[in-house]
Amino acid sequence: MRDEDVRRFRADTPGCEEVIHLNNAGSSLPPASVTETVIEHLRAEAALGGYEAAAAAEDRLDAVYQSFARLLGAAKDDIALTDNATRSWQAVFYALRLGPGDKILTCRSEYASNAIAYLQSGATVEVVDDDESGQLDVDDLERRIDDRVKLISLNHVPTQGGLVNPAEEVGVIAERAGIPYLLDACQSAGQLDLDVTRLRCDALSGTGRKYLRGPRGTGFLYVRPRLRARLEPAMLDLHSAAWTAPDAYEVAESARRFEVWERNVAAILGLGAAVDYALAIGLPAIEERVTRLAARLREMLGDITGVSLHDQGKRQCGIVTFGVAGLPAAELKKLLAQSKINTSVSRAASAQFDFTARKLPELLRASVHYYNTEEELRCFVEEVDRFRP
Amino acid sequence: MRDEDVRRFRADTPGCEEVIHLNNAGSSLPPASVTETVIEHLRAEAALGGYEAAAAAEDRLDAVYQSFARLLGAAKDDIALTDNATRSWQAVFYALRLGPGDKILTCRSEYASNAIAYLQSGATVEVVDDDESGQLDVDDLERRIDDRVKLISLNHVPTQGGLVNPAEEVGVIAERAGIPYLLDACQSAGQLDLDVTRLRCDALSGTGRKYLRGPRGTGFLYVRPRLRARLEPAMLDLHSAAWTAPDAYEVAESARRFEVWERNVAAILGLGAAVDYALAIGLPAIEERVTRLAARLREMLGDITGVSLHDQGKRQCGIVTFGVAGLPAAELKKLLAQSKINTSVSRAASAQFDFTARKLPELLRASVHYYNTEEELRCFVEEVDRFRP
Repeated sequence: MRDEDVRRFRADTPGCEEVIHLNNAGSSLPPASVTETVIEHLRAEAALGGYEAAAAAEDRLDAVYQSFARLLGAAKDDIALTDNATRSWQAVFYALRLGPGDKILTCRSEYASNAIAYLQSGATVEVVDDDESGQLDVDDLERRIDDRVKLISLNHVPTQGGLVNPAEEVGVIAERAGIPYLLDACQSAGQLDLDVTRLRCDALSGTGRKYLRGPRGTGFLYVRPRLRARLEPAMLDLHSAAWTAPDAYEVAESARRFEVWERNVAAILGLGAAVDYALAIGLPAIEERVTRLAARLREMLGDITGVSLHDQGKRQCGIVTFGVAGLPAAELKKLLAQSKINTSVSRAASAQFDFTARKLPELLRASVHYYNTEEELRCFVEEVDRFRP
Repeated sequence: MRDEDVRRFRADTPGCEEVIHLNNAGSSLPPASVTETVIEHLRAEAALGGYEAAAAAEDRLDAVYQSFARLLGAAKDDIALTDNATRSWQAVFYALRLGPGDKILTCRSEYASNAIAYLQSGATVEVVDDDESGQLDVDDLERRIDDRVKLISLNHVPTQGGLVNPAEEVGVIAERAGIPYLLDACQSAGQLDLDVTRLRCDALSGTGRKYLRGPRGTGFLYVRPRLRARLEPAMLDLHSAAWTAPDAYEVAESARRFEVWERNVAAILGLGAAVDYALAIGLPAIEERVTRLAARLREMLGDITGVSLHDQGKRQCGIVTFGVAGLPAAELKKLLAQSKINTSVSRAASAQFDFTARKLPELLRASVHYYNTEEELRCFVEEVDRFRP
């Protein structure tokens, strides 16, 4: 990505003039085209009526599915649009109807919402060991497979660190064993170049607001046809199923079976604009820049006395986590906010398996996107240096 | 409501200059304050970041719960905010975990999404008879109660007609029998004066976009504490429950247990603005005007040869449904749309129990709100008269 491209992307992003935004793993700054797409539709709804505006936007709504199909290397019918990544993930997980006697294999870096759902199901949860780099150990995963394993489920990129789990290698193992493989791409979609064929996952869930730069309250889901066909959603409505007779219903064929009829149409159109913006830049170029900027940030932070970096994994992405000796992360976050630098804090409540195993306190999370600049990173690092005790 | 009030409400509503909107039971025209509240927050998100804007709006977000508590005569902790009425309703229904052997009592006018969920549960669905007016027959409901009945669940106002079910009388029976009572207020919230104490319901679900005049993709849920305490939601995340240790979670105490963490904050703030707008007018005044306008519309339509009115019930609301001999409803809707009059079509797919029992074809649905005028109704009726064969 050339400097002039970055300048253009920043000019497209009103927030770049206001803040140094290093909270892209929380919710990134949208390009103006996303916000204006949402606003334009809200105004159409106010002028014409909500249903009438949706009818007028039908083709554009349909195109959002097409954009996601391109983004993920999937077919349009494999895509569902939802309110958030959690809804997407839950739609598949709870449809599997796992229970006592079943086994779920997951990673140590697993996210709270997913882990809580595993525990609720009553299935046995086995946390696969990390390898020496701190990513999921694929050999250990393979060793744990037996007849009771009914799901392999992990995050691609955790919320609390820069590692990228070896999702493709897991896909090979899952496919060979014939076990459903659910990949939580909440933190990877939009920063890494994803392809469901290469990943060999049966389902992949994600959100709009993070690295995709879409609106809040949007999410997406990919479900491979052969898994979909055997999954009746845990909850149904008149969109995911048709009421065909007083005592009968038929579940939708496509991934629409995991959707709900009513949705925020304006937000979904905005999500489509976000995906189109990313596709126009190209995901390989985004991945290259995000990865390089984050690596540079780790270098710079590593030079500061008292800073300990906590990112693991053989391959790393745009999320950078660290601690500063004698300065709690929550306090540092507040100080940085006063300098108009946005970051966030990762806590054990989001990642018990990982934080417990690593005996970690809270961490400061600085997550970069392609529209960030080295100058912003220098400014951030200077502030961290200034604030440390 | 005085004429000058109506003029003011219309001046607050940009859509009133564009269309004659008689699709309020679909999605009503929002007041400018709602649209501008959403847009203002979207711009704050674009400038500051999504999480940062939400943190700055924390008090206003909290006030949305308070507004709903006022609207429904409930406590703040009894309110959950969701993406739509279906999500609200499903959160309670599926948490009840009904199955074969259990019995659900519902009304003939029940909505497709609810009926599909009943069928999916495997419980026995008993459709309570209508009385001679076409509303749910409370005596028949009472006769059907036995030990197997685990839920009384009905709509307050159906999607396909103007009747208001005798929800308060049902509440007395449900309370006496100690059976959970779930009231679908999707079509009544915002047009009728609701009070959960008077209704004696254990849970009440609704949407933002219909009579409340809020944004699309918003919904709310009331759950009475004593029902809530015994309901673990069918799906959990890190907001509805806390991950307290690697192998343990705790479900939230308040109705937040039925929410999901990520949401469209801008839309929820807009929803709050919509509720506040309604509260400032007063629900009794809204109910009086909506009911009167709809009654007037039925009178006017009744004067046209070939028009058959299909609204039932002892008490009627703002929804008017009718057929025109020789003119399919879908065609009439299209013709009206060309005259910038918004209506919708009610079909058997939305209400199989009812349409099958009444042997009805499609119906045209014209749903009035307080911002509609008699002049608009006259214009609408003239157009219907002009289009009839």
